[in-house]
Amino acid sequence: MAYIAVLGHGVVGSGVLEVLTTHTESIEKRAKERIEVKRILDLREFPDLPYSERFTKDFEEIVTDPEIGIVVECMGGLHPAYDYVRSCLLAGKSVVTSNKELVAEKGAELLALAQEKNLNFLFEASVGGGIPIIRPISQCLAANEVSEIAGILNGTTNFILTKMIREHMEFSEALRLAQELGYAERDPSADVEGTDACRKICILASLAFGTHVYPNCVYTEGISGVALEDVDFADVWGGVIKLIGSVKRLESGQVHIMVCPMFVHRGSQLASVDDVFNGILVRGDVTGDVVFYGKGAGKLPTASAVVADVIDCVKHMAARKYLFWEDAKPDFVADPNTADVTAYVRVSGETGDAAFAAAERVFGAAHVKRLLANSPKAGEAAFVADGETEATLAEKLAKLEAQGVRVENRIRISDY
Amino acid sequence: MAYIAVLGHGVVGSGVLEVLTTHTESIEKRAKERIEVKRILDLREFPDLPYSERFTKDFEEIVTDPEIGIVVECMGGLHPAYDYVRSCLLAGKSVVTSNKELVAEKGAELLALAQEKNLNFLFEASVGGGIPIIRPISQCLAANEVSEIAGILNGTTNFILTKMIREHMEFSEALRLAQELGYAERDPSADVEGTDACRKICILASLAFGTHVYPNCVYTEGISGVALEDVDFADVWGGVIKLIGSVKRLESGQVHIMVCPMFVHRGSQLASVDDVFNGILVRGDVTGDVVFYGKGAGKLPTASAVVADVIDCVKHMAARKYLFWEDAKPDFVADPNTADVTAYVRVSGETGDAAFAAAERVFGAAHVKRLLANSPKAGEAAFVADGETEATLAEKLAKLEAQGVRVENRIRISDY
Repeated sequence: MAYIAVLGHGVVGSGVLEVLTTHTESIEKRAKERIEVKRILDLREFPDLPYSERFTKDFEEIVTDPEIGIVVECMGGLHPAYDYVRSCLLAGKSVVTSNKELVAEKGAELLALAQEKNLNFLFEASVGGGIPIIRPISQCLAANEVSEIAGILNGTTNFILTKMIREHMEFSEALRLAQELGYAERDPSADVEGTDACRKICILASLAFGTHVYPNCVYTEGISGVALEDVDFADVWGGVIKLIGSVKRLESGQVHIMVCPMFVHRGSQLASVDDVFNGILVRGDVTGDVVFYGKGAGKLPTASAVVADVIDCVKHMAARKYLFWEDAKPDFVADPNTADVTAYVRVSGETGDAAFAAAERVFGAAHVKRLLANSPKAGEAAFVADGETEATLAEKLAKLEAQGVRVENRIRISDY
Repeated sequence: MAYIAVLGHGVVGSGVLEVLTTHTESIEKRAKERIEVKRILDLREFPDLPYSERFTKDFEEIVTDPEIGIVVECMGGLHPAYDYVRSCLLAGKSVVTSNKELVAEKGAELLALAQEKNLNFLFEASVGGGIPIIRPISQCLAANEVSEIAGILNGTTNFILTKMIREHMEFSEALRLAQELGYAERDPSADVEGTDACRKICILASLAFGTHVYPNCVYTEGISGVALEDVDFADVWGGVIKLIGSVKRLESGQVHIMVCPMFVHRGSQLASVDDVFNGILVRGDVTGDVVFYGKGAGKLPTASAVVADVIDCVKHMAARKYLFWEDAKPDFVADPNTADVTAYVRVSGETGDAAFAAAERVFGAAHVKRLLANSPKAGEAAFVADGETEATLAEKLAKLEAQGVRVENRIRISDY
């Protein structure tokens, strides 16, 4: 019998209990041992649950229990999750977590501690919900240098963008609908401003490139600035707008990492990832592009990823899994201003033609390609500018504004 | 130092050597040990290779070498691969193979032998080339009951269908192009008639449902009967034709398993899997649909999957991985005639209208929906018939033919 404890009985924590209860036999068969939840930590009371007597409000009861070998952390947030997880590892317990903030902010430290103690610290559920991604990157792609990862990592923003694209809903209306359906929080900023996607691409980047990338080093832009006009121009261009978290290894050994809305070509595997689904593209030198697709969130998919990690812990109590990365190095993350960029730009002026003519002068006619909207807004024009870096693009857009041309929006164009 | 031997220096075998040579350091880092190819078995001579002195024509040199702990089988075909793999396991060596025929025909026996000897028998490369699929199904989806798997499992046929769809090439012309590009063999029947896809869906079915399904129990239909007219009608219907290997668990505990061309709706994640790419959809009770996409074949992607298995073997010399399934059970595979089916049917008669009117009489007007081609062929009509089983569909098509209506083709419609 393998005894575990679950910290937090919220959406994911209660899902873990549900999966363990509904799949007891198949899980025992795979783990070669029965898995029993001995303790659940939550400050709330759940008197009506069949397992209500296992609840505790006292973390000490868990961390000092020698029978409990694995602790599942589903509290979310940094505190007290970080202190609890650290204490558990120090007390010789392996930890499984679904907490992307914890892994993105404290991954290197906790992995080092787990290694020192010869324990497992697993977090498959922290990225992509029920989609297997952490394990495939670390294991199956072991004989492969990953050069690039790009993903639709946040279901809420993808739902909103899908509504804007398919039903021509305004951003604010689509956000309200996402909130009504329970996909978005009352304070939606972590999703909408890209924070959640940023944490996830940090975890994937750290894993793939072996060096911790902290969220505060990552240029992050959300989708609140995306207008229906941009959706239309993306369609004219031949694609859709998606919120993409991406990281790319440079020849210098540094990485370019960024979260921002991007134009994605209709033929791309990422273009057809709609609604609350996630899709993650891993580009390897040997395998080429491999794409993983599925529900990136939700109680049960996430819980199933947590339980798969628990099973792996039970099977490897003596042997560590080979998840590991070093702590951050200075200059590992390249200055985002040096990145090459091709961008869609929407401008307005006295007339659309005049605004575009100004753009031709600033960028050079050979480097701008005008997009013609089906029903253009008066005074507006849009174009694709290539051959720039982030810095020169910003300069040229400033120059345009100095000439009285208003830059309404600019969205980067992906090559996935 | 971990010593391995490679059986067969063909496309995959030489790729394994290449990956081990070009990624030595990263592989050593992950395996925590250097991996050295001590022996390569091939009847041919390769005097110009830097590692030419390691070749042998004598299998005994490998199987009796106590230093060699892992044998990689990349010979393909059943004989002598099967005898060699069996001998290696009996001699206490773990085996990694890319040979789908071997796994599909002898998997249960070899897995049982590996279990008895406490060795690993791994075959990630046998399905989906460089796409991680065997490991995700067996591990990440451990806390999840798989209900259904459907995949585009053969790159050659997918290339041919993509050419028919995108460039309106005839089947024979697209096949010739595939042969010129090296995607298809001179004798293309294993690809074109679905044999290769059948072996792969057998492996996935055996793994997901724990009982060996042998290829000769699987209804298999290839793509040589697909005409450009069918491609056009699929477009009118709203999708594309793909060769799909599928398996579905029934409430009875049996499985429906089949390989055949199918209409796939444009919105499906499988519809955008084009050219030589593979895509595999795994439907779980907890995770929902998860899709894996990538290059399903090719020297280096396949070799990278083989090497990932080798790394896993090196890391788990003492502990077996939990790949396992039982041998076949009678009646595990349900009679294909009992499967529910919705099908596209293309018929011809004196006129298209007359042929369709006959279909309405035979199927009942409520159960047929006519598809109108953009440029219909004289005398032809096409429709979708629902609410049938394979048996009743066959009966009704026979009835139509008895009334002088010719059934030109019928293609099943998928719900993926």
